[in-house]
Amino acid sequence: MTTLLVGQSGGATAVINASLIGVVEGALATARYDRVLGMRHGIEGLLADQLVDLGRLPAVTLDALRRTPSAALGTSRHKVSDDDLDRILTVLRAHAVRAFIHIGGNDSADTAHRLHLHAVAVGYDLAVIAVPKTVDNDLVGTDHCPGYGSIARFIANAARDTTYDTLAAPKLYPLKFLEVMGRDAGWVAASAALGFSGDDSALSPQLCLPERPPESVDTLLAAIEAMRSARGWAVVVVPETLRDAGGRHLGGETPASVDAFGHPYFASPGAALAQLAGERFGVRARLEKPGGFARMAFGLVSPIDLDEAYRAGWAAAWRAAAGESDVMIAFNRLADEPYVSEETVVPLAEVANQVRVLPDAFIGSDGQSMTAAFRRYALPLLGPDALQPYARLMA
Amino acid sequence: MTTLLVGQSGGATAVINASLIGVVEGALATARYDRVLGMRHGIEGLLADQLVDLGRLPAVTLDALRRTPSAALGTSRHKVSDDDLDRILTVLRAHAVRAFIHIGGNDSADTAHRLHLHAVAVGYDLAVIAVPKTVDNDLVGTDHCPGYGSIARFIANAARDTTYDTLAAPKLYPLKFLEVMGRDAGWVAASAALGFSGDDSALSPQLCLPERPPESVDTLLAAIEAMRSARGWAVVVVPETLRDAGGRHLGGETPASVDAFGHPYFASPGAALAQLAGERFGVRARLEKPGGFARMAFGLVSPIDLDEAYRAGWAAAWRAAAGESDVMIAFNRLADEPYVSEETVVPLAEVANQVRVLPDAFIGSDGQSMTAAFRRYALPLLGPDALQPYARLMA
Repeated sequence: MTTLLVGQSGGATAVINASLIGVVEGALATARYDRVLGMRHGIEGLLADQLVDLGRLPAVTLDALRRTPSAALGTSRHKVSDDDLDRILTVLRAHAVRAFIHIGGNDSADTAHRLHLHAVAVGYDLAVIAVPKTVDNDLVGTDHCPGYGSIARFIANAARDTTYDTLAAPKLYPLKFLEVMGRDAGWVAASAALGFSGDDSALSPQLCLPERPPESVDTLLAAIEAMRSARGWAVVVVPETLRDAGGRHLGGETPASVDAFGHPYFASPGAALAQLAGERFGVRARLEKPGGFARMAFGLVSPIDLDEAYRAGWAAAWRAAAGESDVMIAFNRLADEPYVSEETVVPLAEVANQVRVLPDAFIGSDGQSMTAAFRRYALPLLGPDALQPYARLMA
Repeated sequence: MTTLLVGQSGGATAVINASLIGVVEGALATARYDRVLGMRHGIEGLLADQLVDLGRLPAVTLDALRRTPSAALGTSRHKVSDDDLDRILTVLRAHAVRAFIHIGGNDSADTAHRLHLHAVAVGYDLAVIAVPKTVDNDLVGTDHCPGYGSIARFIANAARDTTYDTLAAPKLYPLKFLEVMGRDAGWVAASAALGFSGDDSALSPQLCLPERPPESVDTLLAAIEAMRSARGWAVVVVPETLRDAGGRHLGGETPASVDAFGHPYFASPGAALAQLAGERFGVRARLEKPGGFARMAFGLVSPIDLDEAYRAGWAAAWRAAAGESDVMIAFNRLADEPYVSEETVVPLAEVANQVRVLPDAFIGSDGQSMTAAFRRYALPLLGPDALQPYARLMA
């Protein structure tokens, strides 16, 4: 009996199940594994020995799951302790697990790396492979991460639709704040720029990027008011973790909550800015916050993203079967247009707990617009026909 | 010189421009009008004599505008006074306007009706036709309103995606509140039920309907807690204007703003409930509020809705050319499956300032679920393939 075990971790995305089904179908295709088990709610389910058999699901279920958002196995944000590692190995031995596939972000890569080291230390033969998953697109060692193309498609459309909505009645709501997900890197906020090109370039929103933080709330409000004075309206894109140059969160200094990995979550900077700007400039300011729907909206999924998420899972199963360990599946871009990518690997130690911020070459000299290089990078990830051609009657 | 004049009013939708282009192309096709003019920002632009020529736009622009969300002419919420009516007739005479088409909701129908009466009183030959437009779906005299099918498609998916997201980590966020648009009728909230059928029926959210208001905040919180206790999690759909049976707004008693028609806008009841429930039950409660994006997301537009919006505009131009006046275009449903509808008319006096609430036959005996009759009514309006088949690994 040889078992492959797979789990999902962290915030769910629209395509994380495509990676799961890629692992299952890839594992069955290798013929190396007799059994494919899944952890219920990630490491928490593993510690509690709550495993489910994924190898005997009917093809119709696998196909539907591949196109179902959210994590079908359930996810977890459990931080693995050293004691947990012993317990995990006990469970793995009991089920004859020889491959451990973890679908998640940089925290999951860290867990996988530590599990690999522990297995080596005790002499247990185990292939440990991470599959990237994050809407934040902040993992190092890969061109991009599954999950990002779909949220980028959503946000690019949301920013453009919000702007067109504002144009219809700029006197009514001259200020709109679009708060987007994303931890400390600005990839998601940057994707808001993708909806504006050609005749629409002049409509580009005020982009707030963690990589180019505003000096203070006051300087940001002044920049917003300058844009509103010039145009009659302004749309401002705000990452949910935005801080000023001094490191102060724009939504207040006390985190509303802290997760098991110590990541603090602050009150909405978009809500804070909308209230401040409305009061200071005497205009109506509205907050648009698509929230969790932005990373889950299957109706706006990127077909490229969906396909790559599946391929990442499939590659992980085959790499494990070939005896590789301590790596994360990564994407290597071969061409922008037509877009071509291939799966490769990066050592887990390079990925764990690292954050890849937007490169300087992607950020304009004004510190708040995106360059043509970013557009070349990001647009293919949104998939074909991501942005319908719109028209306007007014300048 | 004979001119047709068209304007857009109220909150924009994803398909209001399809109605505009329907009017323009319909008017040109009748050969009755030498000119098609549009009002910039509705009645406000008319009063200021800000009109734009729509009859000479290239076909490629018309085609792109038809598929552009928001109101390309700009909208307005101006309440027409009796003095305004005189001024309006002066402008209409100056431009030889013989047909006045108003795309909007029940406030716009009222304006159109009063303009018709005024033209008759002073002996000015004018065809006045309203084209329905509202995501609220609350106009009387029509089976449904353009704009509703698209927001219903969005909300049905948002409720389902939010529920699946909750299933992935029910311990992390066991309570989610999905706040949806909609004034005093519950059509938009009701559409959240459409995402749950077959195996997913047991996942249906707690639906709050203005038509069946909760006794008090406390009874609503108790019902939510009962659902959470039974399932381990709960998703609650909250209309933005929800009140309790005593008429008290759940978001507080003082309106955050009042528009020109006297409609009050109250602070978010979803935010209020999330905070109260989180504190009272000691669990994390999260607000999901797709906001304006729900009525504007062109990527999730219903093709049926888009087509009907265009046909409503086209029909208005032809009815005007045939000498009809003082009517709103309406839809008459001929069959549910395959869905077939035809354009008809309803007198403006019947539409103006009326609100059509959900019929009793659409609301379950529990007061918070939707019947099979509602599903038969609403599902066709979402268009084909509105809800991708999803699968689950857990009960």
